[in-house]
Parts: sequence; C-alpha cells; structure tokens
Amino acid sequence: MTPPVVILDRPQMAENIGAVARVMANFGLTELRLVSPRDGWPQERAWAMASGADWVLDGVQVFDSVAAAMADLNTLFATTARPRETRQPVRTPREAARALYDDTGSRLKVGLLFGAERAGLETSDIALCQGIVTIPIDPRHQSLNLAQAVAINAYEWRTLILDAPPPNFREAEPPASGALQLGMYEHLERELDAAGFFHPPEKFRSMSQNLRVMLGRSGFTTQEVATFRGVITALSKGRGRVLERLAKAQKTDG
Amino acid sequence: MTPPVVILDRPQMAENIGAVARVMANFGLTELRLVSPRDGWPQERAWAMASGADWVLDGVQVFDSVAAAMADLNTLFATTARPRETRQPVRTPREAARALYDDTGSRLKVGLLFGAERAGLETSDIALCQGIVTIPIDPRHQSLNLAQAVAINAYEWRTLILDAPPPNFREAEPPASGALQLGMYEHLERELDAAGFFHPPEKFRSMSQNLRVMLGRSGFTTQEVATFRGVITALSKGRGRVLERLAKAQKTDG
Repeated sequence: MTPPVVILDRPQMAENIGAVARVMANFGLTELRLVSPRDGWPQERAWAMASGADWVLDGVQVFDSVAAAMADLNTLFATTARPRETRQPVRTPREAARALYDDTGSRLKVGLLFGAERAGLETSDIALCQGIVTIPIDPRHQSLNLAQAVAINAYEWRTLILDAPPPNFREAEPPASGALQLGMYEHLERELDAAGFFHPPEKFRSMSQNLRVMLGRSGFTTQEVATFRGVITALSKGRGRVLERLAKAQKTDG
Repeated sequence: MTPPVVILDRPQMAENIGAVARVMANFGLTELRLVSPRDGWPQERAWAMASGADWVLDGVQVFDSVAAAMADLNTLFATTARPRETRQPVRTPREAARALYDDTGSRLKVGLLFGAERAGLETSDIALCQGIVTIPIDPRHQSLNLAQAVAINAYEWRTLILDAPPPNFREAEPPASGALQLGMYEHLERELDAAGFFHPPEKFRSMSQNLRVMLGRSGFTTQEVATFRGVITALSKGRGRVLERLAKAQKTDG
C-alpha cells in the first residue's frame, strides 16, 4: 500500500513543515510536496522541528502550483474546515482514508492537500480535487494547527492499514485456573473467619460471594494468585508473630 | 456529556501546554490539569501558542502528583506508546473514547493522562490508571509530539460525540473515585509493611505497583472499597484481638 502523498499549499512557517514531516513519519506517510513555500526551501528550522523524521524532509519536492504538484495523482482530497460553495463530496477523515485506501488498492496514486496556515485553500485549487475532507472541529474554536490536521488524517490512514488492535504489551497471561482461584478464595475466607469477619455467621454466604465477585473481576493470573495468597498470609501471620513474641514474653515473665 | 479531563504529567515546554489547550478547544475538551509543570505556572508562552483557546488555559488546575490530580476521577486512562510489563487493558484511541463515553454516560468523571515530553509516564502512575491507550505509531518513528497525542484522542472523542451513539449505560455501580482507590491501596500497603511483607525493602515499589495493578483491574465500587478495607482490617486486626486476649490471659496469670 503506497500511503497518500501530502501536499502543503503555500506553507508559511518552516517549523510547521517540520512538524508535518514528524507526524507523517509517526503514521507511516513518507512523501511530502510543497507548493511555493513562503520562505523558500530548504529551511533548517524544518529539520529542527522534525524530531528525526529527516527522510521525509530530505525527499521533499517543491512545485509552483497545486496543479503541478498533483499532476501524477489519481485522487486528491482537499482538507478544509470551512464550508464552501461546492458540490464536491465531503468526507470525514475516516471516510477519506477508506476512499484513498480503496483507490490505492486499485494501484491509483492518491494524496491529501492542505492549505496555508490561516489563509487556507483557494476555491480554484479545491476544485481540482476529487473531494473534500472536513475534520470535525468544534465550531467555537476552528483554528486547527496545520500539523494537527495532517496528524488526524495520517492517523486515520494508519489505523485503517493496521485494522488490528495495538499489540498487547505482553502476550497477556491467562487467568489462573478455577481450582487455583477457588483455593485463593477459600484461603481468604478461612483467615477472615478466624478473624471474626463474618458476623453474623449466616451472612457468610453472601459476604463471601461478594468478595469472590469483586476479586474475580480482576482475572488474577497464576502468579497473581500466589501474590495475593502471600498478602493474605502476611496480614494474618501478624497474629502468629505476635503470638510467638508474647508467648516468649510470658515465658520470661514466668 | 462532560468530556474527558486532560492531565499532563510534568510537562516541560509551556508552548506544548498551549498547543494542547488549542487542540482541546478544537475538539470540544475544556478541562486541563497540570502535574508539576517544569517551569511553573502560569506561563505566558502557553497563551501565545493557544491561538485563542484562552478559556482552557485560564481554567488550568495545578497539582503536585498524578494521584492528587486524579482524586475525583472514576476512570483515567494512561496514554503511552511504550510497551510495559503490565496486565492493564490496552485500548486504541477509538476504543478508549468509546469506553470513556460509556462511563460518562453513567455520570462518571473520566480523564486521559499524558506523560512528559520524551520522559513519558512513570510506571507507578500508570498503575493508578484503569487502562492504557496506545496510539498506533509507526515503530520506525515513535517520537510523537505531546499535542499530537492529545489531538488524536480528542479527535476520537469528538467524532464519537458527533455520531451520538446511545451510551452503553453501565448496569453496574461505577468504580470508586481515584482518591478512594488510592486510600485503599495505601491502607493495604501500610498493613503489609507492618507485617513484614515487603522484603527486601527496596522491593516495596515494584511489589506495591503489582498489587495496585492487579486489584485495579477489578474497578472496585465505593462499596467494594469499603468491603476490601474491612478485609484488610479484619486480617490485620487479628493481631490486636490476639494481643488483647493474651494480655488478659497474662493478667490472669499474674
């Protein structure tokens, strides 16, 4: 799957270009094109902001019009937050990622077009695109940072590509066997009973059930069952130690 | 729907705090909390970067620990890209938004925790959380900007809100507040410490973390926290009772 090309139209701050390269790298996008960057190209400040995503910046191509930058693309979506007078299809970033993915699957070359900070995109450039992507911004605060706009779309692309939950940190260990869990519950109940926890005694059934339910939700592993039994023993052994110590003291007294 | 609280743990650059406030406003999040910001608070540079999202910065609350910042929250997810040895549930930002949305629908107070730039989150703070959110970063370029991490999660929240699915109301009682959970952990650790459970002493940190994670997965309700504290007291009070009984016996002997 060749990821979408990112085209920035007349970007102003080199820092923003670097930040865009960084998020592209975060989400597996690699090809960045600039249309008439305000301060020329290359700009050192972009590399400083890219946090090591140098290969994206090193590969940047510069064009003097959106039309030139998109010449080899089959599908280009314009990312714009503002409603425009257009009859082009408007997609969410998620829908756009899906559409671009489908096109890529058909060996088409696809891209996403982003406007300048504040100024946004010209209607004439939007008209060159095959569709519009609108990020669902809160209308009370529409000013979205350029790199954030790229990030949202790149994230949707990568989520789609992975289409799988993130790897669990460790192959999650299974919960302990029922027998081990039961042994733990009975150990706890025995010690609680010795400590006079279940009173009146006819409440034993409901109280122990509640304890089993609340602990059971954790799904303790075999190791964790052992740990928790250690906890029970430690708390209740206090008694044993105190007993020993007192017995010794008694002996000395006697 | 009260959107998730955003907690930044030990943020370094005021510019990043401002950028976080900006994307929060973009996606309808409003409540920002800082834990020990490196350069103190307030910082003018944050406002300069917020692009008008002043109400988020004006409402910032500062805490001196993650535990304090999460005291009133029922559900807090830690956002971290790094694999950790933990058996806490790991969610994508999309799954996390859904889970938080469901909890919010049940009138729970929810939040997202983000680590410091580069340094990330302490394992001990992750252990206080009810789950982990992992953004699907390309492993070849994992360095994700703080505001971008917030943006992805905030975007998923807003996308979900706009789709306005009916929340999956919890039939069950909500988990206890962070403060109550922490109080329970500390109670357990105190009694275990008194019983000599933590040996050698330098193991205290990792052992207590493991206990917090394994018990935290259960999501004890307020009632269950009380029950479990009763269990701890009963097991460790055995000592007191035995002491009393023996003291009495001693007196009789004497």
